[in-house]
Amino acid sequence: MIIVLKKGVSQEQFKEVTDMIKDLGYHAHVIQGTERTVIGAVGSGRGTDKLQAMENLPGVDNVVPILQPYKLASLEVKPEKSIIQISDNVKIGGDEVAVIAGPCSVESEEQIIESARAVKAAGANMLRGGAFKPRTSPYSFQGMEEEGLILLRNARKITGLPIVTEILNPADINLICKYADILQVGARNIQNFALLKELGKVDKPVILKRGMMTTIEEFLMSAEYIISGGNSKVILCERGIRTFETATRNTLDLSCVPVLHERTHLPVIVDPSHGTGHWKLVTPMACAAVAVGADGLMVEVHPHPDHAVSDGIQSLKPEKFSEMMDSLSRFAEAAGRTLPESS
Amino acid sequence: MIIVLKKGVSQEQFKEVTDMIKDLGYHAHVIQGTERTVIGAVGSGRGTDKLQAMENLPGVDNVVPILQPYKLASLEVKPEKSIIQISDNVKIGGDEVAVIAGPCSVESEEQIIESARAVKAAGANMLRGGAFKPRTSPYSFQGMEEEGLILLRNARKITGLPIVTEILNPADINLICKYADILQVGARNIQNFALLKELGKVDKPVILKRGMMTTIEEFLMSAEYIISGGNSKVILCERGIRTFETATRNTLDLSCVPVLHERTHLPVIVDPSHGTGHWKLVTPMACAAVAVGADGLMVEVHPHPDHAVSDGIQSLKPEKFSEMMDSLSRFAEAAGRTLPESS
Amino acid sequence: MIIVLKKGVSQEQFKEVTDMIKDLGYHAHVIQGTERTVIGAVGSGRGTDKLQAMENLPGVDNVVPILQPYKLASLEVKPEKSIIQISDNVKIGGDEVAVIAGPCSVESEEQIIESARAVKAAGANMLRGGAFKPRTSPYSFQGMEEEGLILLRNARKITGLPIVTEILNPADINLICKYADILQVGARNIQNFALLKELGKVDKPVILKRGMMTTIEEFLMSAEYIISGGNSKVILCERGIRTFETATRNTLDLSCVPVLHERTHLPVIVDPSHGTGHWKLVTPMACAAVAVGADGLMVEVHPHPDHAVSDGIQSLKPEKFSEMMDSLSRFAEAAGRTLPESS
Amino acid sequence: MIIVLKKGVSQEQFKEVTDMIKDLGYHAHVIQGTERTVIGAVGSGRGTDKLQAMENLPGVDNVVPILQPYKLASLEVKPEKSIIQISDNVKIGGDEVAVIAGPCSVESEEQIIESARAVKAAGANMLRGGAFKPRTSPYSFQGMEEEGLILLRNARKITGLPIVTEILNPADINLICKYADILQVGARNIQNFALLKELGKVDKPVILKRGMMTTIEEFLMSAEYIISGGNSKVILCERGIRTFETATRNTLDLSCVPVLHERTHLPVIVDPSHGTGHWKLVTPMACAAVAVGADGLMVEVHPHPDHAVSDGIQSLKPEKFSEMMDSLSRFAEAAGRTLPESS
Repeated sequence: MIIVLKKGVSQEQFKEVTDMIKDLGYHAHVIQGTERTVIGAVGSGRGTDKLQAMENLPGVDNVVPILQPYKLASLEVKPEKSIIQISDNVKIGGDEVAVIAGPCSVESEEQIIESARAVKAAGANMLRGGAFKPRTSPYSFQGMEEEGLILLRNARKITGLPIVTEILNPADINLICKYADILQVGARNIQNFALLKELGKVDKPVILKRGMMTTIEEFLMSAEYIISGGNSKVILCERGIRTFETATRNTLDLSCVPVLHERTHLPVIVDPSHGTGHWKLVTPMACAAVAVGADGLMVEVHPHPDHAVSDGIQSLKPEKFSEMMDSLSRFAEAAGRTLPESS
Repeated sequence: MIIVLKKGVSQEQFKEVTDMIKDLGYHAHVIQGTERTVIGAVGSGRGTDKLQAMENLPGVDNVVPILQPYKLASLEVKPEKSIIQISDNVKIGGDEVAVIAGPCSVESEEQIIESARAVKAAGANMLRGGAFKPRTSPYSFQGMEEEGLILLRNARKITGLPIVTEILNPADINLICKYADILQVGARNIQNFALLKELGKVDKPVILKRGMMTTIEEFLMSAEYIISGGNSKVILCERGIRTFETATRNTLDLSCVPVLHERTHLPVIVDPSHGTGHWKLVTPMACAAVAVGADGLMVEVHPHPDHAVSDGIQSLKPEKFSEMMDSLSRFAEAAGRTLPESS
Repeated sequence: MIIVLKKGVSQEQFKEVTDMIKDLGYHAHVIQGTERTVIGAVGSGRGTDKLQAMENLPGVDNVVPILQPYKLASLEVKPEKSIIQISDNVKIGGDEVAVIAGPCSVESEEQIIESARAVKAAGANMLRGGAFKPRTSPYSFQGMEEEGLILLRNARKITGLPIVTEILNPADINLICKYADILQVGARNIQNFALLKELGKVDKPVILKRGMMTTIEEFLMSAEYIISGGNSKVILCERGIRTFETATRNTLDLSCVPVLHERTHLPVIVDPSHGTGHWKLVTPMACAAVAVGADGLMVEVHPHPDHAVSDGIQSLKPEKFSEMMDSLSRFAEAAGRTLPESS
Repeated sequence: MIIVLKKGVSQEQFKEVTDMIKDLGYHAHVIQGTERTVIGAVGSGRGTDKLQAMENLPGVDNVVPILQPYKLASLEVKPEKSIIQISDNVKIGGDEVAVIAGPCSVESEEQIIESARAVKAAGANMLRGGAFKPRTSPYSFQGMEEEGLILLRNARKITGLPIVTEILNPADINLICKYADILQVGARNIQNFALLKELGKVDKPVILKRGMMTTIEEFLMSAEYIISGGNSKVILCERGIRTFETATRNTLDLSCVPVLHERTHLPVIVDPSHGTGHWKLVTPMACAAVAVGADGLMVEVHPHPDHAVSDGIQSLKPEKFSEMMDSLSRFAEAAGRTLPESS
């Protein structure tokens, strides 16, 4: 921590600052500048929270943190990129760009099986589908719950695709782990710390979606909750942040992909469906995500988007998804990556 | 819903749109404009989600909702302001401006009793204190949990002040209800729908804090979750939104107070401590909150802010809080409101 | 400047950094931390831009500025608050809260004279009115230009109220100075440096409106342009920033008033009309602005808002403005301030 | 325009609304909904500003615009993409991805000539360099002005590269037109309408950079100012918007490229240097821009970034730029586009 003193600080105020730094177990290293005095708090004392609170002292102008607050998620602690194995032949984080596709919600057996077959045929290697849905309105469809999970399991049986589904309530963790291959934490739960702590205890990969107003540092701190709890299989997902712009549902922050790759070993995937909110923008942004280094994509595909119970506007029809995969294959090649092999 | 068609829409595309409107159980009312054709979907058919998804149709430019999505929270349904009774002599929503004060976290018996006595002496009529803490870092102090709740109960015994404390996990609801008079939902859980649903089932008032990225409409929809679940004792709390400005921790959106008063019967309180992040800004913003019509304030007060385990920078010392109450009394009078009577 | 080195920096990289610091004319003060090495660049060398560019060096993690970049606008340079004299009996920055009111645009002689009389009768002490209008659309009314300035001069003759009007083009400066008592720089021109430089050369007060995405630091830097050019009569005006919230036209950032008062000696006024975009919100936010310490208000008033050529939605009718002034007088008193005396 | 009436509107209020619609020259088309009454104002009456101001009427809840406010910039008016010819062999908007590169500021003859040769060798087909610089601080380097323009002309003589340079002041327009091939309007001047109007009168292409707070609709309205003034040679440039995220200087909104391509015929280029603020992020975001359909790139390249007087942190060294062009060629091919031929 760097403590910047006020201009014209008194000798007494100066002493109060250095005394408190020492009381907290740090060494106070003083730099006398031309206009300001600056103090480095060196060592590993009793916490950055308490140093930060020194901004309260009358002689202190502000306190500047130097170190990143995340450890286990950082490249400094683990310099090689993590590859997360999902099933025998599916992983996220290697040269192959993972492709997770499927409808927003599981709506019926027919719908989810048709979706699973279609996305598999087009080259996806994982199936998404929500059984517990976080909806802005209490009057909107809230998901098929366990019945939806059973249908997802059936879809996996038929297609072999691993299943990604969302968890909303820590109480549902055992239930969902029975069916899902990957648990997804939605944007609205990015700082639901009760949920993150529970996910630290399970032995399943977790896709952690960035919140609409989550900084990259906070995003990594939420990952740190899961890893420090004991589960290092965390996949980060950029899905758009909230800005003033209303032409798109969110603003997909693709620059966060290379920024994250400089800071963390965790794989980073991109969701261009929520990121834009319009199906026409999904393919160009998916291609851009691969160009920028994303380790995977998560795309909403629905056999009949204009009858979908949720997110129909941003869902691709199967034939559009198939065209997307064709475009994507050219960009993956340009990026020196591969797409999952169709089977 | 208003469906705006594209310029040059074909007769076939037009028919597809009107057919689907009818299929969904609405009447299609067509307006031929000079440049565009616009269709009103009139009636109460099978849901706005499905009308909204018509943006997918080739002839449709966009779909504009007309009605507010919240009902029970709206002034249209209940035109008189709600007054929420907390205890025999404490309520929120009437002429008296409620004042909730206390430390961010319960840290020790001495700290919480000292805080409770001090805020009571200065004129607060409720005590706040966190026993379960939502912290950005897993390595920060996470709260004293049940031990903290017991200390809060002791503080109530001594001072008579009702207790406000935060709930993070639906699983803790019975535990916290045993001790607290008001349950608080933090900004990070504003769209934790699993938690909101549980709070709809309890018979305790809930303070719902606006999230950093929550629109006023979404804020009311989250209240609607609790009310539609059966608990109408919801108090809304503005606590700052996230913007590009970094001089303050958040940007306190005071205009949301009169906007909410035009839309909802629920009481609206303001938290200038989180809203600004700096103790020096708390008093001016508290006075402004009362000027703008807030029904209450929630203020962080700590006997020794520079030793607080959390939020020390934004906490008032008891003597500063007392000065704040003096200023506030003048502004409350100017607003035709009263402050709680000191006892 | 504080230069934070990367973890595991090599001896060679370290030398490159310290050599460059010395080359730029600074002294390199090294702090060896437990995890990182940090270097303070002390002295007054060849510029912060060049120190900042050291982030390019392979051994450098990031560079943290310590000093504020504004000088003449800062309280450190001039610790007493500035009071800016507008005319014999009108000033901004003292105990009296200045009240500038009038229509968005000058539309006709009748409209501006009627407006001027009405705002004066209600207690305003300055008249606003735009003759050159910055409109989002080239097809919207662009202002009456010099004809409008002449009408403003007539309104001053009749009422005695000093005139505030906007300048868009550096080329218009002499023309506008002939008529106006205060020149206004609109939010869209806050970083129109060509215009700011010209305003540094004139002997007229300038109201500088914060841009929709202007940080407080940038706001003060724009004031610094005018002051460093030779004109210290700058009045800062908060008028709402752009956020994700769409319920209001902008989000009025009232906390910027006390933040600015801690940093600058310049007077700070508030425009609740643009700040909210709805006339119903103007009075509560005006009262809040006074509660928070604003030195003045700028309010749109129009005799017939539903026929106004611009900004009708946010304009008060004269009778509503008069009611606002009544409310305001109570809040001004609570704040220990006065309102202009009606004459 | 759609006018939504309040619930429970009186017969009198209803009449007031329909009368005013007719007075303004529109036909009032009424839709009686289940809960609300909605009126379409049909025809081409006296302006959307005046319809919008009807929100002031007591019976009106809100007013919803249906038509886009831009005309000449829209695809509806000109459905084929515009290709803008810059010189005999350089154009923007066709299959070839234009590459504009060079330093932020012209600093010296040696620097600009070295830069021009380097960017040409690597495959750029236009040279950028600022002679008039918009700097946040009045104490920062403000540009070499005409001397810089002369150096740019020399660089063109030597390399044949057309010159792009920024204009800040309408008064400089003749001077800059003497030297430049393309005039650039910076982000801070996107709503400097005095400048935009002047640019409507010149016969030179204009690169219009999106402001930090500019919506896509406002962006097109600023282009409309130039086109409606008589100059249709407008190139739009996305360069990052301001959000809450501080890990990057701005948030590059790549989704705006396909959104713009759906709405306008104007070419769209991307500036990944300002868009990210860090040279390491320039190459990935440049590749992503091409993947998403950008018609060109604008990249800062400096022979010695750590000695640059401005923007050194985000400037590529010539060898890094050359590597970028190599990567870019693969993505351009994947996108079915070409890069300029090296000469």
